[in-house]
Amino acid sequence: MAVSIGVDVGGTKVAAGLVDAQGQLQGRESKPAPTSSAAALVDLVSELVRGLASGHEVDAVGIGLPGLVNAARDTILFAPNLPLRDVPMAAQVSDACGLPVVLANDANAAAWAESRFGAGRGCDDMVMITIGTGVGGGLVLGGRLYRGAGGLAGEIGHMSLDPGGPVCGCGRRGCWEMLASGSALEELARARAGAHPNEAKVLLGLAGGDPKAIEGPQVTQAARAGDQVSIQVLDEVGRWLGRGMANMAALLDVSRFVVGGGVGEAADLLLGPARDSLRDNLMAGDYRSVPEVVPATLGQAAGIIGAGDLAHQEIVAPGQA
Amino acid sequence: MAVSIGVDVGGTKVAAGLVDAQGQLQGRESKPAPTSSAAALVDLVSELVRGLASGHEVDAVGIGLPGLVNAARDTILFAPNLPLRDVPMAAQVSDACGLPVVLANDANAAAWAESRFGAGRGCDDMVMITIGTGVGGGLVLGGRLYRGAGGLAGEIGHMSLDPGGPVCGCGRRGCWEMLASGSALEELARARAGAHPNEAKVLLGLAGGDPKAIEGPQVTQAARAGDQVSIQVLDEVGRWLGRGMANMAALLDVSRFVVGGGVGEAADLLLGPARDSLRDNLMAGDYRSVPEVVPATLGQAAGIIGAGDLAHQEIVAPGQA
Repeated sequence: MAVSIGVDVGGTKVAAGLVDAQGQLQGRESKPAPTSSAAALVDLVSELVRGLASGHEVDAVGIGLPGLVNAARDTILFAPNLPLRDVPMAAQVSDACGLPVVLANDANAAAWAESRFGAGRGCDDMVMITIGTGVGGGLVLGGRLYRGAGGLAGEIGHMSLDPGGPVCGCGRRGCWEMLASGSALEELARARAGAHPNEAKVLLGLAGGDPKAIEGPQVTQAARAGDQVSIQVLDEVGRWLGRGMANMAALLDVSRFVVGGGVGEAADLLLGPARDSLRDNLMAGDYRSVPEVVPATLGQAAGIIGAGDLAHQEIVAPGQA
Repeated sequence: MAVSIGVDVGGTKVAAGLVDAQGQLQGRESKPAPTSSAAALVDLVSELVRGLASGHEVDAVGIGLPGLVNAARDTILFAPNLPLRDVPMAAQVSDACGLPVVLANDANAAAWAESRFGAGRGCDDMVMITIGTGVGGGLVLGGRLYRGAGGLAGEIGHMSLDPGGPVCGCGRRGCWEMLASGSALEELARARAGAHPNEAKVLLGLAGGDPKAIEGPQVTQAARAGDQVSIQVLDEVGRWLGRGMANMAALLDVSRFVVGGGVGEAADLLLGPARDSLRDNLMAGDYRSVPEVVPATLGQAAGIIGAGDLAHQEIVAPGQA
């Protein structure tokens, strides 16, 4: 049985693995990402691919990248945190490995993986929401990855939900990721714990007594131990999460939201309020069902699996995924 | 050459016509919509279809309806303003006419028509925005009509853009149609003209001196004559229009917005500010182009043409449109 190779290029490391037709990861390697030049990155990726391919029947290589990939999916146009500008990376890696190579945006790769093999299975219309420092996303519509006219679809963190909200790095106010990201959670927890230390004793204890030292995972941990401020903060961020979902449901009528990323690990502490808020904010009716909100199941492996499977799909059914 | 028949069922009238493969409307008839029963409506539609079909080689009939059509596109599940609940209308009209019949949501039909033959030509990824009493829409993504998991995609008027905004009929605050519809325009103009009569002399003149009597088209007319309040009101509503477009562009990366409906007739008085606001609110970059904002070109005929062509597509390439 042929397998594909998926590569997940991040800002700090490059991970790669063999992906079979059932989406199982059969081998996995990881190296620090060289940030000196595009050539160094291409060399490292090629070396990882050659090593993994050895002794296997590999049909294609998919490379997920944290940036903008062109429509032909052979060139990385721009990546904010890596030295990649207009790099024809597919041809370069292909020349070095003798295998067909397809590029993908990393958020799209993760969405595709969850759709095919993870929390999105059995659902043709879903949005994957990845909550970390910011809020990213990927769309599977009608069973296909939807990339948009210029490959930029899924920049869901920059939908503005509140014209009076906090100013985002992009210059707008009230972007979703200013309200529902890991950073938003952290900032809110620091402010609330500072203002109400008696209701945040557990949380402050975890942060050594200093509200400014509070970090996201501590909020989840403290909430699990009954910390009132932590529970409220997760509820508030979860409600903003649900409001954004309701807007996407109005526009797209998807049947499922898959939530991944670091903050996704808070699970029902966050997704419970998100479900309530989605239901409250959805124009509901007898003929409309409320979309499901489920945690992602593939974790860090989603980027590798999705990139590999997208490349595999391109070989077996070109232009269909 | 075979033609199709398109039927556009509205809350007050039923319009139908012959549609050729180039999207040209070759005949058109219109009757008041019977609101007494589903059977009366089915009879009227069948009668219109038989009349139009006589002497022509008709391949299919498409019926656009102001409500929710099921996934198989043979049953109208619900229409708020017509006596239609779970009516298998495709089979009923087909039995009466001897032609294949496909149902469609009317906003989707209009979006498809503009995409194929109107202002959306040459563009695979577009959102049609219809501005009237409310704000409705339809999506063409990847060159195909996107209906969503339950056929409800395109309820764009109920994306909330301002949690502190006016309360909508749906129960939420700050829905887009509370900020950027014809009703919103009218309400804003009435309030501003009442508060600043000296800057609204032209507008108040058109409304017989009574701010409460101001109607939407008068705002456009007065703005063209230099009325300051009218120009400001159109600018403000146009800017909200652009904010909603920016959110859809972030999510979908479409390359064009086509704006139709009554308020769309204000043309650049409204679309100019919308373009400015879309550009200001779009997370821009060197690799992103600002989507075009263009007026719809097919007017009232879009519903008929789109319904007819969707039915025609279903015959020539099933499941592709």
